[in-house]
Amino acid sequence: MSTYNIAVLPGDGIGPEVMAEAHKVLDAIATRFGLTLTLNTFDVGGCAIDKHGHALPPATLAGCEQADAILFGSIGGPKWDSLPLEQRPERAALLTLRSHFDLFSNLRPARIYPDLAHLSPLREDIARRGMDVVVVRELTSGIYFGQPKGLEGEGEQQYAFDTMRYSRAEIRRIAISAFEAARKRRGKVTSVDKANVLVCSRLWREVTEEVAKDYPDVTLEHIYIDNATMQLLKSPTDFDVLLCSNLFGDIISDECAMITGSMGLLPSASINGSGFGLFEPAGGSAPDIAGQGIANPIAQILSASMLLRYSLNEVDAADAIDKAVVQTLSDGVLTGELLSQEQRHHAHSTAQVGDYICQLI
Amino acid sequence: MSTYNIAVLPGDGIGPEVMAEAHKVLDAIATRFGLTLTLNTFDVGGCAIDKHGHALPPATLAGCEQADAILFGSIGGPKWDSLPLEQRPERAALLTLRSHFDLFSNLRPARIYPDLAHLSPLREDIARRGMDVVVVRELTSGIYFGQPKGLEGEGEQQYAFDTMRYSRAEIRRIAISAFEAARKRRGKVTSVDKANVLVCSRLWREVTEEVAKDYPDVTLEHIYIDNATMQLLKSPTDFDVLLCSNLFGDIISDECAMITGSMGLLPSASINGSGFGLFEPAGGSAPDIAGQGIANPIAQILSASMLLRYSLNEVDAADAIDKAVVQTLSDGVLTGELLSQEQRHHAHSTAQVGDYICQLI
Ligand SMILES: CC(C)[C@H](C(=O)O)[C@@H](O)C(=O)O
Ligand SMILES: CC(C)[C@H](C(=O)O)[C@@H](O)C(=O)O
Repeated sequence: MSTYNIAVLPGDGIGPEVMAEAHKVLDAIATRFGLTLTLNTFDVGGCAIDKHGHALPPATLAGCEQADAILFGSIGGPKWDSLPLEQRPERAALLTLRSHFDLFSNLRPARIYPDLAHLSPLREDIARRGMDVVVVRELTSGIYFGQPKGLEGEGEQQYAFDTMRYSRAEIRRIAISAFEAARKRRGKVTSVDKANVLVCSRLWREVTEEVAKDYPDVTLEHIYIDNATMQLLKSPTDFDVLLCSNLFGDIISDECAMITGSMGLLPSASINGSGFGLFEPAGGSAPDIAGQGIANPIAQILSASMLLRYSLNEVDAADAIDKAVVQTLSDGVLTGELLSQEQRHHAHSTAQVGDYICQLI
Repeated sequence: MSTYNIAVLPGDGIGPEVMAEAHKVLDAIATRFGLTLTLNTFDVGGCAIDKHGHALPPATLAGCEQADAILFGSIGGPKWDSLPLEQRPERAALLTLRSHFDLFSNLRPARIYPDLAHLSPLREDIARRGMDVVVVRELTSGIYFGQPKGLEGEGEQQYAFDTMRYSRAEIRRIAISAFEAARKRRGKVTSVDKANVLVCSRLWREVTEEVAKDYPDVTLEHIYIDNATMQLLKSPTDFDVLLCSNLFGDIISDECAMITGSMGLLPSASINGSGFGLFEPAGGSAPDIAGQGIANPIAQILSASMLLRYSLNEVDAADAIDKAVVQTLSDGVLTGELLSQEQRHHAHSTAQVGDYICQLI
């Protein structure tokens, strides 16, 4: 009987309430597939600052180190926005975890579900044709972590600086992630850069072309970031895998998420070279709706599915969750934000959606 | 009688053919308003590389220096894409002109014309509510020009680096441009940054807040770049003036341009502290449709209008062009890309649209 240890970090805002549903789903999966899943919960983010004075307390980091994977909720909120950059939940917890565990490969799937195409902010004829992409974002380098970074000088001449930086090795490994993903999908990688301006992007193109030689079955195209934000609106069907640096992936993946119109459905995976990973919803902590029991738990539940698939290699268990989610959506068991104003009274609560998925498993 | 000297740089792709129409329009304006406009044409971009070995030949730069303003077409194309970064048309000509003349303030208006709302890729109910924004983009600093920038190291450890850099003074002057623009519009500035990750963005927020104190009549909001790309799709009406750094402005202005669905209508202005400026269409050189006489000349013609307004202070002349363009659009005198497939046989040519506008002036 397979035994796994999962570190659960619910965080702030809607994090705890959607995590409760993912927890239930993992329990149901454990029963059905005969797995022993040990879930240990730790404080992270703003609530950890309030309780322990640090967004990523040592006990949390230690718990993650002992785990086979991390299931992460969401962190941050207006309450902690005025802290110095280094102490804020996003940097002190999320970015630290990413870099501590070298979680360089961030996979962000985004698709327009045919039943939910009307939720997309795109014109009906465009949305109806669909979108089904994975953004493969480099997550541990680039301008997020490049050194030096700081403030210098005095008065009006005082200046701030950040460094964007990429090595060939860093570009190569994320490009390989993208080509591997494309090979299992529709065989196309679109690499997003700003090669007409950035030296980093020129190297990015060069190494990506080298990697492409090992994947004759996959097509490689290059697109400038400014043009990418445009083409995604005009013809989202043109894209399969979008390969991006850290900053460009942040922007492109959020644009793709919004194009689906159903942010509450989107999970993400951040994985290192040995398959260890952190799995979290694509959306934020949504402090405005926290505690009301109306948040959509599906992104968190699909994050648990990605955890089973990528870190634990429990593919059948992951497939079972994905199937139950698709069924739930087509059965119309939906939280309010997926329903039109007139249909809103049919909304299911966070817990009802979680229960429905469990019962299908 | 007012006399002005305008440097005309048509460039590559559709540049020359749309510039010919702007030239006609400026002639008509000169007659009607009794201005003496001397237009001197110079080579720039890929065609200048082919003819003179440099994208910005000395004669072109000298011609710009002697002018009161620059009317720019568009440059670049696949033919010159594999040149080293520093020699390519975009860097060697456009970025050099921006930095040589310190054209720090880039204004990119984007609006959904009610008559053309169906062209927007956004859902009908969203597009119908409209969008009318100006992106105020910092154009001479940030990661485009920050030093150091280069390649170091060997083998797989070889790395590329670019520096994002902003001084208080640089942020202050572009923030002032944005607040001044907002004061003449709907009184709202949304500043786009990534303050949860970048030191440059933290300073950007701080200085923007300082500038805001001098504009009690203008509201200031801050938004992260990733969230901005999303909210523009969901509720474009929320925005008035978008204040952006160089890189973020490149991305956001192109997203806004695509949201209008009519790229061929959008001009832009790049201005320095003394009102000297470069005026160019927001779209690119579109080599795929060059030479066919089907390109929309309106963006180039509205760029001439911005030139009259911002560099020459000839507000009545600028108003006359803007009015003629609105009339032309509502009279249905449109190039093909603004028409649906079924209506395409009613398309007017580049020259017909230019002539129609002249005749209205
Ligand atoms: C919270 C923030 C630092 C983070 C990022 O920019 O990476 C978030 O936007 C994300 O995409 O996971
Ligand atoms: C051509 C390129 C260097 C340029 C930029 O990124 O500034 C263009 O995209 C623009 O927006 O004017």
